[in-house]
Amino acid sequence: MSTRDDLILLESVFPGCDTLIQGNPLELSQQLQATKNVSKALVAILCRQFQVSRSQEEDMEKIRDSVDGAFVLASAALVFFMQAGFAMLCAGSVREKNCMNILLKNILDACVGAVVFYLVGFGFAYGTGSRTNSFIGNDDFWLQDITENHSWHLFFFQWAFAAATATIVSGSVAERCSFQAYILYSMFLTGFIYPVIVHWIWCGEGWLTAFATNGYGVDKASLLFSSGMIDFAGSGVVHMTGGLAGLMGATIIEPRSGRFNSDGSPNTNFHGHSMTLVVLGTFVLWFGWYGFNPGSQLGISTPLSLLIVGRTAVTTTLSGASSGVTALLLAKYKVGTWDLNVVCNGVLAGLVSITAGCSTVEPAAAILCGCIGAFVFDRACDLLLRWHIDDPLSAAPMHGFCGIWGVFFVGLMAKKQYVEQVYDRDRADDTPYGLFYGGGGELLACQIIGIVCIAVWTCGLIAPFFLSLKRMGLLRVKLCDESVGLDESHHGGKAYYQDDAPAGAVGVVSEVLPDARSQDTVLQSHSKLSEMLPGASC
Amino acid sequence: MSTRDDLILLESVFPGCDTLIQGNPLELSQQLQATKNVSKALVAILCRQFQVSRSQEEDMEKIRDSVDGAFVLASAALVFFMQAGFAMLCAGSVREKNCMNILLKNILDACVGAVVFYLVGFGFAYGTGSRTNSFIGNDDFWLQDITENHSWHLFFFQWAFAAATATIVSGSVAERCSFQAYILYSMFLTGFIYPVIVHWIWCGEGWLTAFATNGYGVDKASLLFSSGMIDFAGSGVVHMTGGLAGLMGATIIEPRSGRFNSDGSPNTNFHGHSMTLVVLGTFVLWFGWYGFNPGSQLGISTPLSLLIVGRTAVTTTLSGASSGVTALLLAKYKVGTWDLNVVCNGVLAGLVSITAGCSTVEPAAAILCGCIGAFVFDRACDLLLRWHIDDPLSAAPMHGFCGIWGVFFVGLMAKKQYVEQVYDRDRADDTPYGLFYGGGGELLACQIIGIVCIAVWTCGLIAPFFLSLKRMGLLRVKLCDESVGLDESHHGGKAYYQDDAPAGAVGVVSEVLPDARSQDTVLQSHSKLSEMLPGASC
Amino acid sequence: MSTRDDLILLESVFPGCDTLIQGNPLELSQQLQATKNVSKALVAILCRQFQVSRSQEEDMEKIRDSVDGAFVLASAALVFFMQAGFAMLCAGSVREKNCMNILLKNILDACVGAVVFYLVGFGFAYGTGSRTNSFIGNDDFWLQDITENHSWHLFFFQWAFAAATATIVSGSVAERCSFQAYILYSMFLTGFIYPVIVHWIWCGEGWLTAFATNGYGVDKASLLFSSGMIDFAGSGVVHMTGGLAGLMGATIIEPRSGRFNSDGSPNTNFHGHSMTLVVLGTFVLWFGWYGFNPGSQLGISTPLSLLIVGRTAVTTTLSGASSGVTALLLAKYKVGTWDLNVVCNGVLAGLVSITAGCSTVEPAAAILCGCIGAFVFDRACDLLLRWHIDDPLSAAPMHGFCGIWGVFFVGLMAKKQYVEQVYDRDRADDTPYGLFYGGGGELLACQIIGIVCIAVWTCGLIAPFFLSLKRMGLLRVKLCDESVGLDESHHGGKAYYQDDAPAGAVGVVSEVLPDARSQDTVLQSHSKLSEMLPGASC
Repeated sequence: MSTRDDLILLESVFPGCDTLIQGNPLELSQQLQATKNVSKALVAILCRQFQVSRSQEEDMEKIRDSVDGAFVLASAALVFFMQAGFAMLCAGSVREKNCMNILLKNILDACVGAVVFYLVGFGFAYGTGSRTNSFIGNDDFWLQDITENHSWHLFFFQWAFAAATATIVSGSVAERCSFQAYILYSMFLTGFIYPVIVHWIWCGEGWLTAFATNGYGVDKASLLFSSGMIDFAGSGVVHMTGGLAGLMGATIIEPRSGRFNSDGSPNTNFHGHSMTLVVLGTFVLWFGWYGFNPGSQLGISTPLSLLIVGRTAVTTTLSGASSGVTALLLAKYKVGTWDLNVVCNGVLAGLVSITAGCSTVEPAAAILCGCIGAFVFDRACDLLLRWHIDDPLSAAPMHGFCGIWGVFFVGLMAKKQYVEQVYDRDRADDTPYGLFYGGGGELLACQIIGIVCIAVWTCGLIAPFFLSLKRMGLLRVKLCDESVGLDESHHGGKAYYQDDAPAGAVGVVSEVLPDARSQDTVLQSHSKLSEMLPGASC
Repeated sequence: MSTRDDLILLESVFPGCDTLIQGNPLELSQQLQATKNVSKALVAILCRQFQVSRSQEEDMEKIRDSVDGAFVLASAALVFFMQAGFAMLCAGSVREKNCMNILLKNILDACVGAVVFYLVGFGFAYGTGSRTNSFIGNDDFWLQDITENHSWHLFFFQWAFAAATATIVSGSVAERCSFQAYILYSMFLTGFIYPVIVHWIWCGEGWLTAFATNGYGVDKASLLFSSGMIDFAGSGVVHMTGGLAGLMGATIIEPRSGRFNSDGSPNTNFHGHSMTLVVLGTFVLWFGWYGFNPGSQLGISTPLSLLIVGRTAVTTTLSGASSGVTALLLAKYKVGTWDLNVVCNGVLAGLVSITAGCSTVEPAAAILCGCIGAFVFDRACDLLLRWHIDDPLSAAPMHGFCGIWGVFFVGLMAKKQYVEQVYDRDRADDTPYGLFYGGGGELLACQIIGIVCIAVWTCGLIAPFFLSLKRMGLLRVKLCDESVGLDESHHGGKAYYQDDAPAGAVGVVSEVLPDARSQDTVLQSHSKLSEMLPGASC
Repeated sequence: MSTRDDLILLESVFPGCDTLIQGNPLELSQQLQATKNVSKALVAILCRQFQVSRSQEEDMEKIRDSVDGAFVLASAALVFFMQAGFAMLCAGSVREKNCMNILLKNILDACVGAVVFYLVGFGFAYGTGSRTNSFIGNDDFWLQDITENHSWHLFFFQWAFAAATATIVSGSVAERCSFQAYILYSMFLTGFIYPVIVHWIWCGEGWLTAFATNGYGVDKASLLFSSGMIDFAGSGVVHMTGGLAGLMGATIIEPRSGRFNSDGSPNTNFHGHSMTLVVLGTFVLWFGWYGFNPGSQLGISTPLSLLIVGRTAVTTTLSGASSGVTALLLAKYKVGTWDLNVVCNGVLAGLVSITAGCSTVEPAAAILCGCIGAFVFDRACDLLLRWHIDDPLSAAPMHGFCGIWGVFFVGLMAKKQYVEQVYDRDRADDTPYGLFYGGGGELLACQIIGIVCIAVWTCGLIAPFFLSLKRMGLLRVKLCDESVGLDESHHGGKAYYQDDAPAGAVGVVSEVLPDARSQDTVLQSHSKLSEMLPGASC
């Protein structure tokens, strides 16, 4: 017999009491007291029972907290793993001679990012102390006031996001950016530019947020156009920011030496050195995206959040997949080959595009989002080539332009019911939603304002920054260093050392016959080279 | 003082009431009413309390749902990550000139698979609408009727499985299958062949399933031989299907050019191009298997499911590990070297073998399963070579033959208690279990029928399909394309571009001295080649 | 209206009953009985309600178990994935000619480790039967007595740790250790040396443990110096053990041929063959560390464990990151280049260093721990070179020396409140904590005793073991095998096969013109080589 059966029977035997059950506890208590034949002991026992229930409710809340915490922790680990994906994607997409350089930048984005985000970034993003404002956080620096359990997880999760933002840029300026410049912009981005955008959009106090609450449900009055900007997992906050910073960087640092021929056409001889690494990176990023997008719900312990998380995983999958297929067909149509690199880029373009709307659009809309995302990426790449902007990883088209598309798309196709679910809106609220579903233009307006503000903020800060570095001569490596490759000129060696051919033979010879000289045809030092070429002044 | 202490004391002070506690709620309520001195208010308060308990029970059920959902989501992400493992394993196992081709196929299995599985596959597998039947699902196409939370997770999880099935095939026909043929069979497999098998065995409505329930426990009457086929995570459903489809493909497409010498002996000069990638792929697959096998429980929130999941992780580990060791020793005995590739294949063979029985066999049995799995794999490889079937990845022996072994093995060594636990059988039911434990032949019969039906269904559909493609000339690339390599002939380039040796030197030369010509000895275009060789008609 | 409101109202209406609520249940019951107007039926209903609450409490406990189990399972999978990280790190750090050898050792550490740990290791570590003792476990061999759910997860988690310990050693003796010797020490380490240390420190029965409980909270009397050794995730248990075993191995096996020049200076021509693999390995290890460290809490279902897990993830991140940055700057200062390999090693050194104290130190302390860890690693590397100990992976400095530092550091900077939280100490207990915080020297003494005992136990067993193997001539491969490379001499081939240049051309030639001979300049067989060099006697 279940509790429910007990309850039904009790009610059936005492016909009048079902109305009492619904009644005011005060009245009930008073009626109980009025009957006079109820001892205090009985009431005390009843109270104990209520106390037990109360404590059980608290216990359940604690379990929910733990489930949510475990979910965020796992998601954060996946998002961190995306650094490995970026590293492999970047390494595979550059020439062998610059491989260590980009790998170093990738791993340092995580390291430097952790220290800077700990010291200031997290405070600018989420620090809402007593003098809070809607523009920038101003508390919780170096986790000094961390008291709540959730803050640890949130810091961990947000650090992984910040590191991803910085890493996007490294692709755009790959193969010629100086190491000092990289360190400086990485710190600037993770420590200031990115956290402020996070505060606007993801912190409940931000002026653009869709999350504002006043403790009794959503405080619609404080939301821009009663809506706020919907950027669930960061097509705008993360990808646009990184992509546009990269666009500024690539523009200001100018193309790699020899990237464009004298007639202005692109030199087709610039190949990444390993498609295997590109594919590995793409898969790792895709895998990590299942932490990035579903994890942005920051919880899974209620039926509603479970529903949202599951839907998010599905829309993420469908957008990435359909964008990959679209990109494949587009390249087949344009170039005539089944291009692997294009599919990898297409998948990532689709994933970037759905990141803003992953929780608020239908599966079919996600497919549409991905298909158009592939076109956006393709057009943006063509545009950059026409403008002679050299972005080795196509990071600006992928993260910048598809990020814009993703944010914009939400304004068109966010579904009413889903917006209500995700952003805790009351059905009576008449919440703005996607224009195409008849939800009015308020949401779209918020999205466009968000796009403009992120763009102005990011470009307005990073462009002068890059220009200053350029003026100081700190932005770009010397031409001869670039030609030799950054690995040999700056990082003391090469990424790969092959054994002499035939493998081992020379080794045996030199050991058995000590005077046999190693036929080291592979490694020629930088210094020898400059002796050979008197005209090259390194 | 705990609730329990309260309870014991209450019972001890009212000696007679402990029998009442066990009694019928109706009688209890009537007795309470009969005492006349109980006010409606008191009863109402009691009822409120029961209501609270009821709602708490529902809340706990919701938390359990969330825990299960998070578990399935995480497992699905791991299974998806197996695509990266397959990609690396396949890439490493083919020659450099076909590397991009197989990588492209792997990534498209996930992309095309997602779209096709969304449109039709999921509906054929799990769509049980009003006109349901035991052969094929016929509802829920393009997720149109998705209402339950769990369906999103299930779709995500099942898509990852479907993509894995398709990817298995790509290994068997690697290095010579045309891209069009690949796209077509991949769609056919993920959209129709595989989902139907899923419906038979994993959907509660299927004719071969071991899961059938009628709402009041297991409906044994509807199970084949009162047992149904036990294929917990898919030795049969996934691996046999993929492996046998691969076997048909490899047979019909015929061996790679030059694979067998004129005397019929295999050419030993066909090496995969990177063992590092093979090992990476093996580890990633093994890692993903901890989503594949334990995740197939689809829940972890009850003590029983927790127990099953934990046991599954352990048996999976032990079978893979013991199979790897067995394969190592076997190769040492046969060939005389400690062979790395053999260990990787051995581990995977062991993992495939235990996939059907991972939740229903003991640890020691798992070790046995893995050891024999290594032998099965070894013998099957020899057999294929003798039959002149060229399977570059040994996908048919690994997934097909070890899949058969895994399904068969369950019929021998499924433990009674474990079968009862996993398939929700009543102990009184006299449930069939492993033959070697005295569980009768019913389960083994189900397993054999399952093997036969999967084989007939898969081969009966895919063989004519491949034969038709072959007749239309769509199945295989041209000989000269195969010789040049699919990457250059079909995919517009190469997987790897090395800098000229010495690294960077030529670059500097060509930039400093513009008339110095790049000594491009690495890249020779396809067209130049055919000029050199007038006899080759590409 | 919430349960809480009900409760408050009931109490307010019956003013006297709030004292009764706090009272003894026995008195309450007797008072209830004394009122005489309470029917048995009412009491029975009250009792039923308490029963329901009781069963709900049990249900919640079960859910907590499941959440903890899922957490451990996921963590274990991540720790297992570290094997892939080790494999890539090791492969990238050795020369191409020994790549397969080290990969094979890495994968076999998992395989052989699983079998050995199943048979004996787990029993030695955690088997606490009736005749338990504080030195070594003596029950639960081959999981025979496994009854509790948690044991499956614990076995899975612990196996992954054991495999990691063995893998550390393979780096120290890379490129010259014989395969037989490797198999033997791997079994010895995972089957005996490591499990005994686990029993001391992580099993509640161990003599050094900080976990001892007697069922009513912590049994301080049984703890060494009322404290026990704090090694939360195994800076000592795992890393020191592996690192010191590696140090012994590297010392006894002697340097690789040609590693030191005749003047004693190190030969700078020993490069790992792929920095891409090193970076991939580093990221995978870092990723896996989020299972290793937070997972060592073995639960997340309570607010306290959630707090500890979150904090652990943050300190782990900050220590690894700050150590990476410190190592970068240190190398820039010492050598003048921005060294990628140094950053990878630095990150790992920081992660090893924080592993003991990750749950009990503050974020700022974690940064300090990582910074000093980078120095410890750097100095240890220099020391080994000066002592002419050749450790190709720097495994001894990283895992051995930074492991020692990590354990020691806890004695200095473990925070009182955090120690109380993690090790379940009562605040009144006057628990020893970090010396620098004024916590007395007891904890530091325990840490030092732990360091000494792990070192003596590990070195005292493994050094004679390696020496015996050396005397029997089983430890090291022949000189000519080492020169040729272990891959060709022992493992039947090479890790990489490049297509002939130009790609595919030779293939076409040989197929079109059958008499054209393959210009196989890459592969020269071992036997041919020894013909060329009559002096080399292989």
